[in-house]
Amino acid sequence: MNIINGGVCAAKGYKANGVHCGIRKNPGKKDLALIVSEKIANVAAVYTTNLVKGAPLTVTKNHIADGKAQAVICNSGNANTCNFDGIEIAEKMCKLTADAVNISEKDVVIASTGVIGQRLDLTPIAAGMKPLADGISEVGHIDAAEAIMTTDTISKEVAVEFTVGGKTCRIGGMAKGSGMIHPNMATMLVFITSDVAISSELLQKALSSDIANTFNMVSIDGDTSTNDMVVVLANGMAGNDEITEENEDYAEFMKALNTVTVHLCKMIAGDGEGATKLLECKVSGADDEQTAKIVAKSVICSSLLKSAMFGADANWGRVLCAIGYSGADVDVSKIDVSFRSPKGTLDVCKNGAGIDFSEELAKEILLESEIEILVSVGNGNEGATAWGCDLTYDYVKINGDYRT
Amino acid sequence: MNIINGGVCAAKGYKANGVHCGIRKNPGKKDLALIVSEKIANVAAVYTTNLVKGAPLTVTKNHIADGKAQAVICNSGNANTCNFDGIEIAEKMCKLTADAVNISEKDVVIASTGVIGQRLDLTPIAAGMKPLADGISEVGHIDAAEAIMTTDTISKEVAVEFTVGGKTCRIGGMAKGSGMIHPNMATMLVFITSDVAISSELLQKALSSDIANTFNMVSIDGDTSTNDMVVVLANGMAGNDEITEENEDYAEFMKALNTVTVHLCKMIAGDGEGATKLLECKVSGADDEQTAKIVAKSVICSSLLKSAMFGADANWGRVLCAIGYSGADVDVSKIDVSFRSPKGTLDVCKNGAGIDFSEELAKEILLESEIEILVSVGNGNEGATAWGCDLTYDYVKINGDYRT
Repeated sequence: MNIINGGVCAAKGYKANGVHCGIRKNPGKKDLALIVSEKIANVAAVYTTNLVKGAPLTVTKNHIADGKAQAVICNSGNANTCNFDGIEIAEKMCKLTADAVNISEKDVVIASTGVIGQRLDLTPIAAGMKPLADGISEVGHIDAAEAIMTTDTISKEVAVEFTVGGKTCRIGGMAKGSGMIHPNMATMLVFITSDVAISSELLQKALSSDIANTFNMVSIDGDTSTNDMVVVLANGMAGNDEITEENEDYAEFMKALNTVTVHLCKMIAGDGEGATKLLECKVSGADDEQTAKIVAKSVICSSLLKSAMFGADANWGRVLCAIGYSGADVDVSKIDVSFRSPKGTLDVCKNGAGIDFSEELAKEILLESEIEILVSVGNGNEGATAWGCDLTYDYVKINGDYRT
Repeated sequence: MNIINGGVCAAKGYKANGVHCGIRKNPGKKDLALIVSEKIANVAAVYTTNLVKGAPLTVTKNHIADGKAQAVICNSGNANTCNFDGIEIAEKMCKLTADAVNISEKDVVIASTGVIGQRLDLTPIAAGMKPLADGISEVGHIDAAEAIMTTDTISKEVAVEFTVGGKTCRIGGMAKGSGMIHPNMATMLVFITSDVAISSELLQKALSSDIANTFNMVSIDGDTSTNDMVVVLANGMAGNDEITEENEDYAEFMKALNTVTVHLCKMIAGDGEGATKLLECKVSGADDEQTAKIVAKSVICSSLLKSAMFGADANWGRVLCAIGYSGADVDVSKIDVSFRSPKGTLDVCKNGAGIDFSEELAKEILLESEIEILVSVGNGNEGATAWGCDLTYDYVKINGDYRT
């Protein structure tokens, strides 16, 4: 499997574009993205479990109930959530999209991200739709990935090439991350496109099983968003025999999908709002996977540990504290903790108690931009990884006046 | 009932003191506190549910198993947690205390707060014990309250006077708050003294029932501490008939206790690490109390909302978001949200959707130092209140280099 360029246009038959239509005030910031598949595609999706759900999620769920979709429209700058006319607006936005690319509005996936509780004005979207649709191309993935950014500082794309049944296949994806990220059975906005031939059922199965270990293990700030969604389109244009059962081809697809999702997870976590560091908590030695997951996620969510990591302070007591209140059933006297980065590995806690370590080496290791927090909770065989980021002045700054 | 001065020395028969013995490097910062009751007192306590528990909790639990105690010793600067010899050290510290005030070591309550995972050196404590014990007095509550502070910026004391069975009774308390505060069936460090005569059983019952609506509803940063503890001593010196059942006297005592604990809750939340504002989320209209509590606590814990409050930004979508992911079973279309402060009340969300409001008035209201977030979730009769604080640059600063 190779990592390749092309993002959501890497797979056969996909074109995309992103423009500034005027939802956002800054004319330099794109705010409307479109992805179109040449052929109608099988589709799968997962959504936030927040009871407060964005109107676009309701509309998308309805549109893809038949397992089919052909285009994705997504705006930034406004979440179209908690508005009395949200669903009506989202439906109209799908109609505008469908008319512009000449497909059925029932085959449009829609997503929105931005401020909650402000009415979404369709005027700029209606005006921008023609240039958006006219401009779709195979290099448009770059503009599309930019157009879904909110407080993200970098656009997030990845694509891989692999083989299924002798045919070259591709999967590409783009994501918007940054804030209000603490997925729970669903995730932030992620759009994935593939040319693999796979049934809608298997596509959904693959996605649902993958996110349990990828997007659901990311947390930026503990706030599960109202508009989280991951959508995968697979249009079958790679020409492989359609995957309809959990065979070898399915395993290959899963592997490629996982490469894409893990890559996007790390990009999202590393570019969390205000973040200066990507944190990766790797838990091992658990008796069961669930315990390992609970521990990894609790560590990655601790505001105290996140602040310590920002300050490059090896305050491992906060790792133990977070494990202790996680709810996981672990034996504290068996916990080991180490910090690792390209500068080296530092053991800081053995059997639940502190051990002597070099504060200088600790500083050197923790000043890197990617830190692994290695936790062993016993002699079991199960493990889990969670991704997060440090808590910084800029997180507070960004969120102290997000609306203005 | 009157609020009076005197803190933990307000009730009859209690003396206290606080000194700098040298656990902390800064000679201006007191680090050792002592409270002594003239007569042996009935005692009740609640502890953190964190699996990682400070050694002092284990020792205290053991010492007060008989429902009796006569002194409280507490140091700041070191939590005596995650150390291989923690329990031995805590036992020795109790012995030093007992010898200095001439009581049994089994009647000493011990607590520690500060860095986790660094051995607690008894040398400065042994040296400081005599001046500490020699100096106890009825005005020593001020020094004692100072000595338990960690990153607290103000010491936290309160006392009330009330009547039980015709006798004047008092309850006083002191607390240390600030960081690693997200109580779960227990709380931060709080010491409460009373001269009421009440059985240990009823005292425990009163405390356990009170904290469910007070300390357990406070969150500074979502991190449940390893050393949380609330202890109440009641030495009976007020001369009332001992309270041994849930009668009118018990109700009076509960009311007074609640005044003390709510007061300390608000002081702890308002002085949360880096905080500029006390946030009080009042939920009403719930069908059951548990739902109201879950909603109130989720709102108060949202990093996004806390940042918005720091920035005086009426970003109520984050209140709805936090309610939506709280796990509470509520009908989103029935949620109303208002912000209130001494500057006025502002309705921002009605029936789950945004309503027009004056951004100027919003700013004026939210620039105050005490903000109420009023949430109505329906037509039920149950409610709950939770306390927290805003998330600020200083929280990150304080916790980026806490150990140095």
